[in-house]
Amino acid sequence: MNKKIKKINAAILIIGNEILSGRTQDKNIAFISNWLNSKCGISVNEVRIIPDEEKVIVENILILSKKFNYVFTTGGIGPTHDDITAKSISKAFKVKYEYHKEAFKILEKYYGKKKFNDGRKKMAKMPKEAKLIYNPSSAAPGFMTKNVVSLPGVPSILNSMIENCKRYLKGGAKIHSKTLNLYTVESNISHKLGNIQKKFKNFVEVGSYPFFRLGKIGVAIVTRSTSLKKLKIVNGELIKLAKLKKIKILKL
Amino acid sequence: MNKKIKKINAAILIIGNEILSGRTQDKNIAFISNWLNSKCGISVNEVRIIPDEEKVIVENILILSKKFNYVFTTGGIGPTHDDITAKSISKAFKVKYEYHKEAFKILEKYYGKKKFNDGRKKMAKMPKEAKLIYNPSSAAPGFMTKNVVSLPGVPSILNSMIENCKRYLKGGAKIHSKTLNLYTVESNISHKLGNIQKKFKNFVEVGSYPFFRLGKIGVAIVTRSTSLKKLKIVNGELIKLAKLKKIKILKL
Repeated sequence: MNKKIKKINAAILIIGNEILSGRTQDKNIAFISNWLNSKCGISVNEVRIIPDEEKVIVENILILSKKFNYVFTTGGIGPTHDDITAKSISKAFKVKYEYHKEAFKILEKYYGKKKFNDGRKKMAKMPKEAKLIYNPSSAAPGFMTKNVVSLPGVPSILNSMIENCKRYLKGGAKIHSKTLNLYTVESNISHKLGNIQKKFKNFVEVGSYPFFRLGKIGVAIVTRSTSLKKLKIVNGELIKLAKLKKIKILKL
Repeated sequence: MNKKIKKINAAILIIGNEILSGRTQDKNIAFISNWLNSKCGISVNEVRIIPDEEKVIVENILILSKKFNYVFTTGGIGPTHDDITAKSISKAFKVKYEYHKEAFKILEKYYGKKKFNDGRKKMAKMPKEAKLIYNPSSAAPGFMTKNVVSLPGVPSILNSMIENCKRYLKGGAKIHSKTLNLYTVESNISHKLGNIQKKFKNFVEVGSYPFFRLGKIGVAIVTRSTSLKKLKIVNGELIKLAKLKKIKILKL
């Protein structure tokens, strides 16, 4: 892509033994990444999935928050003993782990004073001076500490909150994407496709992914760029290539 | 878990811009992890998703292959320009990247001499002395280089090959798992659950995951251990806890 255009990047850090063990199929990575790409012009450059262990969380927060503009964590912000994300982030950044006044009030109001027990109170404990990310579906807020945004692991709750992150994020140029579905096999076009990628390597990213559809095989050519103009030029070349090789284009 | 029992661990390294960008929902992590857990007694301790960039692949292969007993890579072993896994692993381990004789023969036979073009030949290029992982669905083999197992990214093909990895893996003790579904909220049991985890922390891992079912909310308590006996004891305590708190257990 064009190196002159400011590119803002992010990492996603999934915290949760249930994803690592294979018990739960992650759905948050694709959702967050699509949202960052399309709504904020931020591209995800790395994802890590790690266990609910303080030492491992601290280590990864420090590495990723230095390496990328933003880090999005998911999971570990509920009321049980294995929810240690807030505490670990406090430790990583050497800030106090304490009750967030506004979060405390929100949760107290949501549950009512009588039902606001210790487990629920725990969800108001955050790194000092964290900024809240409001949660319209189950009250317990996410939070942002330095460049680290912490969201819950339950996809439906995460999805309901994501728009509330936006005001804290500085986006880059929007990343456009086009997909061309060709009824051919990868090896039939791999050489010429490589040449096209080389020619435009500073502006457009070209990916090639096999697909199976109604018993036929094909290749989806996905192009991504911050420049819509360059994207159109590359797609023009791809269509020319398809015509030259007499490859049928699948229109979806 | 019991520290006396030999634990064998692994990392999964997903190589692919299409997963990072959110275009494709990953399905391989849960599949590989479940298979390693249940069939080999190997637990996955870290997952990373990285772009199709040689430098990044080399760096991650070196880090993960030192840190864990095994590394499983997926993606980047097809015929196109963005398939650079084999080349990058060769570079990481400083071994030649060359045609694997048997892989070459398998692919030549599968495609027929006339249709065995350069793109397809590329799929026979591997790190020197790699061990083949046979592919019953589309011929192109996976391979193992030192402790790194490389598989394709297309889930149906990967699934068809996984059993062929087994002969190269030394497993540990099998990890057993039990799930108890309780009709309650996490915060109602979080304190006592934390105590149970503390008491058995060397033998059993206790995780707590909210669920929604037919309009009711609940918590799945997942326990994992190499000792079936210890697992039963902990589940006994959990059932006691449910009775004490008058929590309904959901039988699935």
